[in-house]
Amino acid sequence: MTQSLTTLLGITHPIIQAPMAGASTPAMAVAASNAGALGSLGCAMMKADALRELGKDMKNQTNRAVNFNFFCHTEPASSAETGEAARALMKPYYDEHRLGEVKDANPTHFPFGEEICDVMLEIAPKVISFHFGLPPADLVQKLKDNGSVILSSATTVAEAKWLEANGADAIIAQGFESGGHRGFFLESEDACIGTMALVPQIVDAVSVPVIAAGGIADARGIKAAFALGASGVQIGTAFLNCVEAGIPSVHKKELLASDGSNTRTTKVFSGRPARGIINRYMEEMREHEPDLPDFPIMNTLTGPLRKASGTANSPDFVSLWSGQAVGLNRESTTEELIQSWAKDAKL
Amino acid sequence: MTQSLTTLLGITHPIIQAPMAGASTPAMAVAASNAGALGSLGCAMMKADALRELGKDMKNQTNRAVNFNFFCHTEPASSAETGEAARALMKPYYDEHRLGEVKDANPTHFPFGEEICDVMLEIAPKVISFHFGLPPADLVQKLKDNGSVILSSATTVAEAKWLEANGADAIIAQGFESGGHRGFFLESEDACIGTMALVPQIVDAVSVPVIAAGGIADARGIKAAFALGASGVQIGTAFLNCVEAGIPSVHKKELLASDGSNTRTTKVFSGRPARGIINRYMEEMREHEPDLPDFPIMNTLTGPLRKASGTANSPDFVSLWSGQAVGLNRESTTEELIQSWAKDAKL
Repeated sequence: MTQSLTTLLGITHPIIQAPMAGASTPAMAVAASNAGALGSLGCAMMKADALRELGKDMKNQTNRAVNFNFFCHTEPASSAETGEAARALMKPYYDEHRLGEVKDANPTHFPFGEEICDVMLEIAPKVISFHFGLPPADLVQKLKDNGSVILSSATTVAEAKWLEANGADAIIAQGFESGGHRGFFLESEDACIGTMALVPQIVDAVSVPVIAAGGIADARGIKAAFALGASGVQIGTAFLNCVEAGIPSVHKKELLASDGSNTRTTKVFSGRPARGIINRYMEEMREHEPDLPDFPIMNTLTGPLRKASGTANSPDFVSLWSGQAVGLNRESTTEELIQSWAKDAKL
Repeated sequence: MTQSLTTLLGITHPIIQAPMAGASTPAMAVAASNAGALGSLGCAMMKADALRELGKDMKNQTNRAVNFNFFCHTEPASSAETGEAARALMKPYYDEHRLGEVKDANPTHFPFGEEICDVMLEIAPKVISFHFGLPPADLVQKLKDNGSVILSSATTVAEAKWLEANGADAIIAQGFESGGHRGFFLESEDACIGTMALVPQIVDAVSVPVIAAGGIADARGIKAAFALGASGVQIGTAFLNCVEAGIPSVHKKELLASDGSNTRTTKVFSGRPARGIINRYMEEMREHEPDLPDFPIMNTLTGPLRKASGTANSPDFVSLWSGQAVGLNRESTTEELIQSWAKDAKL
């Protein structure tokens, strides 16, 4: 018998607002947690001091459980030549936006390590979730001994088994439908398994609770996830048209205009596959996709372009992250969405 | 209010055994229909005389509703040079299997047309389903006037709306998880939408009943499909380990060994994207995928290889069609699967 997910996470409704670094906001996490779901903070790009401040802020704004999310990617291994070739590809785009010299081909954020772990031990949040695997075993153990519940995403049965064996207290089964970065970490190539197929196969393979993610955007999806054997859901894209979402207005507009058929996964923004609405930059860079520097170096190079495009109210260079159920999106607030889903799905 | 799917199709359980040309058999269709589901015959590669005989045979074996399935692909438009280049690629494989001259680069089966339509007007089956769109409007109208219910597959909301506007009585929402050929016909590129995201978006867009397909392989998937708003399900891969399946034993073995992570879509067998378990031929031919002749010319060229490989009990050149929920497969009979699903899903 698996422990109830709501008890494990200390929440009322078995719904996790997905951590979406650069898109979700502390205000969204507070609203989600105060509405009885699990609010999440995408902390992958934060430095220790800022994270410490964020931890204090959160404690002032909610006494409910909150989830802090981090990346556990492998350090980039691509060559300096690959980095320079990508800088050369970026140059005309930087020139078009009058952005000056292309940034150096270096990572500007790093996998979860000792320094950030120490901050998490101070903050001691109820939940810490990881993407792209788990941190080194000693750090996982310290966080668990400190009382935090550990989550991570699996895109295959093999990844789910690995996460369970390495200390995850519950597993997020991330289907191919989901927006943003694919969490795969074991397979040499992305297996691209849809939520409908992935969830029951993972449920059968592990004994910890399974949280379904990908393609879920309303009460119908929540009920379907439970029918498949999931103990909860993680929802991302549906929150991006909420007032609390920290994305450019042109991104919100593209989401509301989509019928779900114009997204695909791409490495051209960050160096790792992530799902977004197809735009000019994705189309033009597609042929170079196999030759780009590793995550997150590519993310460094595209940063100024993404920002300038959003400021100029153009969709052309914004990473328009979106899942495939985006056609169900509507303008709302985080609280209203969670309350309506809980009511309609009879949670 | 949509008409009940079971009433529309004249069946007891809202389950369609997917037509899988070359894999399903008349025995499977009879077993499925007699168990209260809708049995389907994959007739895309049949000539008129054989089809007429099959129609008579079916009437002798079941008085329940049966579905005859056909392809509505566009005629191949690739050049003779493309065909010859593909023949040259096949030559070493033909030599390896001592198969003599590579077949001519011509189609050996054709889209649903007048002659086959006339046979269908004679047989007058309860249900006729199409893949890759619909036949010309006058043929659709004749079949409907003759009393057959018309189904076809949509992989996007736009395709679902097109099918409804062009006479489909119910729409199969085919998610990216499904095995075999992707049914897309309107989009220039496959949108690859997963079942969890596709079904509710199509349900919201059309007023005819929606049948969920892709990633459904047990009662959990059936219940999830209903939660998403579907009126029924179409299931394929789960039937391939039934005694009635007409596939090589090496294919059955590969299905039972899979955890769902080793499939992908490929054009290398037929010229159109279809999902199968990755094997030597898929790997070796991957780089040539963009340059192959159109469907179904490529199918002609690979025919002898697929057959020889199956006979030799090797998975290397068999089109190992499979959906992503294949990890749920078990050895059974068509009747037993349908009865157990109907019981467990409380249909």
